[in-house]
Amino acid sequence: MKKVKVGILGATGMVGQRFIELLENHPWFEVSALAASERSAGKCYREAIAGRWKLESSIPSAIGALEVTECVPELDCTLVFSALDASIAEPVEQAFAKAGYVVSSNSRNHRMEKDVPLLIPEVNGDHLAIVTEQKKRRQWKGFIVTNPNCSTIGLVLALAPLHKKFTLKKIMVTTFQALSGAGYPGVASMDIIDNVIPYIGGEEMKMETEPQKILGRLKNNQFVMADIAISASCNRVGVSNGHLESVSIELEKKPSLDELMDALREFNPLAGLNLPSAPSQPIVLREENDRPQPRYDRNEGNGMACVAGRIRECPILDWKMSVLSHNTIRGAAGAAILNAEYMKVKGLVG
Amino acid sequence: MKKVKVGILGATGMVGQRFIELLENHPWFEVSALAASERSAGKCYREAIAGRWKLESSIPSAIGALEVTECVPELDCTLVFSALDASIAEPVEQAFAKAGYVVSSNSRNHRMEKDVPLLIPEVNGDHLAIVTEQKKRRQWKGFIVTNPNCSTIGLVLALAPLHKKFTLKKIMVTTFQALSGAGYPGVASMDIIDNVIPYIGGEEMKMETEPQKILGRLKNNQFVMADIAISASCNRVGVSNGHLESVSIELEKKPSLDELMDALREFNPLAGLNLPSAPSQPIVLREENDRPQPRYDRNEGNGMACVAGRIRECPILDWKMSVLSHNTIRGAAGAAILNAEYMKVKGLVG
Amino acid sequence: MKKVKVGILGATGMVGQRFIELLENHPWFEVSALAASERSAGKCYREAIAGRWKLESSIPSAIGALEVTECVPELDCTLVFSALDASIAEPVEQAFAKAGYVVSSNSRNHRMEKDVPLLIPEVNGDHLAIVTEQKKRRQWKGFIVTNPNCSTIGLVLALAPLHKKFTLKKIMVTTFQALSGAGYPGVASMDIIDNVIPYIGGEEMKMETEPQKILGRLKNNQFVMADIAISASCNRVGVSNGHLESVSIELEKKPSLDELMDALREFNPLAGLNLPSAPSQPIVLREENDRPQPRYDRNEGNGMACVAGRIRECPILDWKMSVLSHNTIRGAAGAAILNAEYMKVKGLVG
Amino acid sequence: MKKVKVGILGATGMVGQRFIELLENHPWFEVSALAASERSAGKCYREAIAGRWKLESSIPSAIGALEVTECVPELDCTLVFSALDASIAEPVEQAFAKAGYVVSSNSRNHRMEKDVPLLIPEVNGDHLAIVTEQKKRRQWKGFIVTNPNCSTIGLVLALAPLHKKFTLKKIMVTTFQALSGAGYPGVASMDIIDNVIPYIGGEEMKMETEPQKILGRLKNNQFVMADIAISASCNRVGVSNGHLESVSIELEKKPSLDELMDALREFNPLAGLNLPSAPSQPIVLREENDRPQPRYDRNEGNGMACVAGRIRECPILDWKMSVLSHNTIRGAAGAAILNAEYMKVKGLVG
Repeated sequence: MKKVKVGILGATGMVGQRFIELLENHPWFEVSALAASERSAGKCYREAIAGRWKLESSIPSAIGALEVTECVPELDCTLVFSALDASIAEPVEQAFAKAGYVVSSNSRNHRMEKDVPLLIPEVNGDHLAIVTEQKKRRQWKGFIVTNPNCSTIGLVLALAPLHKKFTLKKIMVTTFQALSGAGYPGVASMDIIDNVIPYIGGEEMKMETEPQKILGRLKNNQFVMADIAISASCNRVGVSNGHLESVSIELEKKPSLDELMDALREFNPLAGLNLPSAPSQPIVLREENDRPQPRYDRNEGNGMACVAGRIRECPILDWKMSVLSHNTIRGAAGAAILNAEYMKVKGLVG
Repeated sequence: MKKVKVGILGATGMVGQRFIELLENHPWFEVSALAASERSAGKCYREAIAGRWKLESSIPSAIGALEVTECVPELDCTLVFSALDASIAEPVEQAFAKAGYVVSSNSRNHRMEKDVPLLIPEVNGDHLAIVTEQKKRRQWKGFIVTNPNCSTIGLVLALAPLHKKFTLKKIMVTTFQALSGAGYPGVASMDIIDNVIPYIGGEEMKMETEPQKILGRLKNNQFVMADIAISASCNRVGVSNGHLESVSIELEKKPSLDELMDALREFNPLAGLNLPSAPSQPIVLREENDRPQPRYDRNEGNGMACVAGRIRECPILDWKMSVLSHNTIRGAAGAAILNAEYMKVKGLVG
Repeated sequence: MKKVKVGILGATGMVGQRFIELLENHPWFEVSALAASERSAGKCYREAIAGRWKLESSIPSAIGALEVTECVPELDCTLVFSALDASIAEPVEQAFAKAGYVVSSNSRNHRMEKDVPLLIPEVNGDHLAIVTEQKKRRQWKGFIVTNPNCSTIGLVLALAPLHKKFTLKKIMVTTFQALSGAGYPGVASMDIIDNVIPYIGGEEMKMETEPQKILGRLKNNQFVMADIAISASCNRVGVSNGHLESVSIELEKKPSLDELMDALREFNPLAGLNLPSAPSQPIVLREENDRPQPRYDRNEGNGMACVAGRIRECPILDWKMSVLSHNTIRGAAGAAILNAEYMKVKGLVG
Repeated sequence: MKKVKVGILGATGMVGQRFIELLENHPWFEVSALAASERSAGKCYREAIAGRWKLESSIPSAIGALEVTECVPELDCTLVFSALDASIAEPVEQAFAKAGYVVSSNSRNHRMEKDVPLLIPEVNGDHLAIVTEQKKRRQWKGFIVTNPNCSTIGLVLALAPLHKKFTLKKIMVTTFQALSGAGYPGVASMDIIDNVIPYIGGEEMKMETEPQKILGRLKNNQFVMADIAISASCNRVGVSNGHLESVSIELEKKPSLDELMDALREFNPLAGLNLPSAPSQPIVLREENDRPQPRYDRNEGNGMACVAGRIRECPILDWKMSVLSHNTIRGAAGAAILNAEYMKVKGLVG
């Protein structure tokens, strides 16, 4: 099979680096273009990134030699992954979509647009249908698909089977978010050593709105938000990768603990599609009383699974649990890649 | 004024050390006896503690030379502070109380007993009256008074003025607890580096029951529990000192944000008593959106104040906020000392 | 090829776990026996290790079901890897050797014995010849081979090509050692948070003596120590894995910087032997001025390479550099496995 | 006594904040002027610093209300403390000195100038005499005095009595430097979590040259450098405050261990001067084998003492030891304040 040529917008940032790492040896996609700011343009990637490659893996050698260009829609590829900063993502992504590129974006700018899917393939793959409307309405040759915020995605993935079977009414969530979520340089070390920061700008609003769209329905080309009350408290902790979340939920139907756990374990809507980045099990349930933990569980399913544990009764809502997912893999670059894979099997790419 | 002679049970542990530190130069109390396990008995304190003094201050020199004895009620003092491990606290504290000592205990064993006060002087000083009943019923010459668990105390202190004015109905709390709360050696470094542990044995049950007693009423020599539903999720983070808590509450009356904040600011029931360890302001309200933070706020009021911040509406209950207090000062040794000071002005000590 | 059956002594500790992880799917060896303390004996491994598996990988399922036995020489295997604590390793390892097992030990007990090889295959593979003498002298059917201390091995591996070409006269080394080096529970979190501990019991003496044996010669069945003055200062830092070392050396011959770097780069004495655990390059030279770093470089060569960098002139001795190696892989379990592989190709195993 | 009015140049940075904290309630000095960049000028300090006050203490209220001005020599004060960034310190400090201010600078720019003292009052107070020459030569009404780099000062202070009595020939030093040394935001948290960085730009050169000036002699208005070979390796570790250094030295005379330790203990050249910031003991000697440690020892003498320990023989040079000092107190702001106090008793200020 000939691989689909893909480009990366914002290739030098933290999420851009993850795209490069995760796309190395990808069976369907081949990175043929890297775009970043004017400052990097014209340099080879290795030179542009000098000293700022912040992953434990090495820069793939073919990528290191690739020339970085500006973010203009003249890249030699069919699809672009966008890791652009929110301050500039909007016009750039629109320009690419207009010019005919498929844009799989991790940026927040278009997530809540009424004609843009906010996609988790395991959860709301059917929302993808809205892109027809998007192209028509905007008169674009391409289109934009987005993935949720890094703290939303693990939460919604873990709760989706419960919503499907038992209908979520309320979600209270307190997060323990990793440092990599703030990009690079991001959080100053003097701010987090021996400390916790009980605030992440804009994060709570994202967590309180995005799940309603993802868990909602697409009806007559319109998104009907799920009727779920959500309260989020977002905190930064001194962990490199992996967002841990302490969650309480109320359900309309009242399952037993066994029914709840079975729903989580049996959830695997992508089974059979053989998407290269899909984990064999999207939700891994741990039964020890002290799991999930970021350091030990973040790489479950190559960072694409979410790990749930400590399911127990909640004296106020119905159930409490802890949920973990890797914030720059399942919560960012890996999510956008899975979206692209899903679009490919649905015939929307390549 | 002649100082009251006090002893410390469990003087070599983490909390025992804090007692020693906080009682150095105390205007009312003078440490005249140190008791610990058989292993330490007979040694001078400096020798008994060798290499295990884990505070940033130094061992007071008078204390270093004091001989450590076993925990038998033959100490030269009137009151004992107990920092005993829960596995042995029960018979030892009872023996001291029976023998006529006032026991101000930080151990959990007697906290929920029906004739033992679980005391926060700012909140339920009137509960102290139960000790008359305790002495009578148990035929003891002395008595036991306890302080709450380290994660309970900051929560209840911060919420007490709201309960008093607006009546609490529900509390949901997720904790970020410091390492010192587990004692020494406590949490292994390999377990917490680049990690969070979403579990602390027994802690959630304490947080879900103790507040109901503290915020309840003493009526006809019986405790009537407050009718508050509480749900706690307890987590260990890589912070040396200072328990941070993310809290949502529901109130019976519906105050405005200003009324809520005023209630917190104006709360100061001990003003005028001049207790040496009482902070000038028991609740300090921070208005920046990223406070309280453990490293910057734990020492507020010499570690005896709790710091509240980020008060904002909750989409599910009424209000959300973050609360911080120093777990080995206000949450342990400092709490027991404040209790003793309060008992002294109430005529129950010395 | 039929795999050699191997056992692990001390299978439940930190290093024992690494043995299990590294031996999963090993092409030459198959774990057929696990031995540990009396307390674990009789349980299946998964049960014996409950809650103490401290690696980011999972317990291989075949291993989880294996029964743990006591450390007596009745195991169904040819070779045992020893991760025993030094307090008990001596008689146990001797009993196994006497009974005919090949013992590849990570324990310190026999390292400096005059008839036991202290082996790094890339450096002193010829020392293996002493085992003939060992067997004869001790009248054992099997024999013991040891690998160096975790802080010694990276140092000696990095310096070996320089010694060979230019003859080392002096080594001054200051270490930044990882927490996993202390085992589990090891260093208490309260001791290392926001801190460095400038002391590791017994470590400096090991670093000041072991290199002299490893870099020495075997002549007429006797070890002639290398004539190198070594001064070590050992420190514990808050890093999970990877010992970093700041090194200054004096050489007899005076190479240029290029000659020095070439010697490091060209060093690859095992090339061609195809040992499964041997890294393609035992010494990786980084030319950025801020490398090696533990988090980014410890897994080089699957944790079996050492990484050198910052080579520059020393105003007192000749050259300064930084050296890093993974302390529980190349510095412990991986070293013992590489030794076993080397012994196998030399006809001493299986 | 009327207090001397002092100003702070660079008042909003990390070191500027320490100046403000340490000068609160200073018996001799009163902060009457705060200067910073154009961006801050015109705002009150509390507003200018918003969210960037990074000390555990609070902003003194009088200071919070003070207006921040630009760094031009029109401040209402006699002496200025300079915490300016090296990129701008040179012309600004010179302008102030020319205009008649005494400049006590923590910046590196003038440290090695031939007519500027690089002062540690306990060590080379006599170097202050060069300011007469400085004023004459440069035709300035005021003058500049500097303190050493944060990693130099603890080292030189600890070694000064040994140099005086036994004459230093060689110093090899490897540092473990704290995060606050890099200013704010300084080191990115993603760069230091679970990591060590074996490089600090420019630091090694400072450590290899500054001690030679400080320990040298002033003769006929010229500095004669001390004849000491110095080799430094500088590393950043995940510690908030406190630079730890692993040191080996060679001495011309050959003292016994007792003589060495006595020289350290007896060193107290400022005794009797009653300088407010001088610690009662400039060098504190710890005899436990695992001290000094940053978290426990950095605040010794209110952060103005250096703490030495682990003195033992070195197999290559003569002696090894560990030395610790607080990098933003004794290593920066506190040093400049002590210099100013010393100048005051010497009649050079106010």
